[in-house]
Amino acid sequence: MQNKIAYLGPSGTFCEEAVRCYDPGKQYQAIPYDSVEAVVRAVDRKQAELGVVPIENSCEGPVNSTLDLLTRNYDVKITAEIILPVRHCLMIHPENSGAEIDCIMSHGQALAQCSSYIEREYPGIELTETGSTAEACRRVAECNSRRAAIGPREAAELYGLKVTAAGIQDFDDNETRFVVLSQEDAPPSGNDKTSILLYLKDRPGALYDILGEFARLSINLTKIESRPSRSGNWDYLFFIDFCGHHRQPEISQALGAIAAQARYLKVLGSYPRWQRRL
Amino acid sequence: MQNKIAYLGPSGTFCEEAVRCYDPGKQYQAIPYDSVEAVVRAVDRKQAELGVVPIENSCEGPVNSTLDLLTRNYDVKITAEIILPVRHCLMIHPENSGAEIDCIMSHGQALAQCSSYIEREYPGIELTETGSTAEACRRVAECNSRRAAIGPREAAELYGLKVTAAGIQDFDDNETRFVVLSQEDAPPSGNDKTSILLYLKDRPGALYDILGEFARLSINLTKIESRPSRSGNWDYLFFIDFCGHHRQPEISQALGAIAAQARYLKVLGSYPRWQRRL
Repeated sequence: MQNKIAYLGPSGTFCEEAVRCYDPGKQYQAIPYDSVEAVVRAVDRKQAELGVVPIENSCEGPVNSTLDLLTRNYDVKITAEIILPVRHCLMIHPENSGAEIDCIMSHGQALAQCSSYIEREYPGIELTETGSTAEACRRVAECNSRRAAIGPREAAELYGLKVTAAGIQDFDDNETRFVVLSQEDAPPSGNDKTSILLYLKDRPGALYDILGEFARLSINLTKIESRPSRSGNWDYLFFIDFCGHHRQPEISQALGAIAAQARYLKVLGSYPRWQRRL
Repeated sequence: MQNKIAYLGPSGTFCEEAVRCYDPGKQYQAIPYDSVEAVVRAVDRKQAELGVVPIENSCEGPVNSTLDLLTRNYDVKITAEIILPVRHCLMIHPENSGAEIDCIMSHGQALAQCSSYIEREYPGIELTETGSTAEACRRVAECNSRRAAIGPREAAELYGLKVTAAGIQDFDDNETRFVVLSQEDAPPSGNDKTSILLYLKDRPGALYDILGEFARLSINLTKIESRPSRSGNWDYLFFIDFCGHHRQPEISQALGAIAAQARYLKVLGSYPRWQRRL
């Protein structure tokens, strides 16, 4: 039986494009799921060997719902990352003239990535959030209403929609970072990143001391993100990404020192850094 | 002429409640604006002396659109903070039986704060984002449709809606932090906080060195948040809050040292720490 890769569906999402990019030879059977949580659960329950979910956009920042899922006790690790350029199109039902659009549907992140365009071209229009961009396209295709969808051009073709504007994202170099989840650890590749989740002790200088462990061993941080801990108000968890693999001696040493100082340390995974395709 | 305080309207928002909390004696005339940006612009253009906007929720994290506005060159400072408990209600048109709800409208933060409730009670329902919670209530009141709104109980009364469920936020101790914007600097009160925006140089250890300036002077950080810089991809700005007022010598010394190391430092304001009312 072919191994499965779960992704945020339906067919036509940027997430599906990330799957094609990760597995161009189609070694895995790609299975769409209707939420990020369903993808994570599929990997946790071994219904799929791998799962692909969006984690961060270069202009709009983190996909909070994905970060919050990684704080839960699912048995999944980040085993790869994929960075894709993201160009959005506005599309309507083919029988719609486009003259009277009264609602734009898309994923919350896509609406945010196109907010200047929407504000300029459709001020005050109703915005409806869908679980994914392709879900918005599917729904606009189902009924010839005054609704428009924002999503990838591929989804317009797939669902038979008419593109009325292309490249409507606020920033030209808009990119989204996806992660591949697995129950298996990725072996060191020689050019890796590690993601950790950290819950610090509540004392002044706690974050400084942790960053000191990285500085001491010349480990390069690529990102630090805070999220509410939900254990207490105005109390935060940190998501930290840095260069290196947890099996390298200096990284493992830093992690040990950090674990000894933190309330909680979870290694979300070590994985090869994304190599930009030319 | 009475001085004005701008807030995210329409009437009935949590933001209006924050205004009442900040100015119980109604020394200011409260003026609703229809977006956070309109509030910020009103203060920048001196159409209002003060403006109140939401900046962060204890469970859902930052209001990204507010943070992103603070990175622009508006001539506004944070002059106070207000922390309010936030309890959400689900409400419908009074002539609606509530049996067939097919869309829930609210501010994106409110939808996120009630996501477990929505998922449990209305799986797969259409979610429409509005500029504020009260805006959602106003729109549900306007038409007797199958739409429901999420917002404060006060808004239900104001717009004549029927509350069908109360306290539907995912976390009981849900609180939102608002900031008061002004063109004037708040004088030291003896128990202050300072918010800064920082764009670091792109070198390993840059954040560690900055945090070292705080640690050296025993300045207590209360929060650190990253946002995409939008100057380059996968490059971040930091919003940092810490205890103290920029006119205190040790704070001013730390700020000087930080400014010398950063690409960019903007003091967003020093203001009295919120005192919880008993």
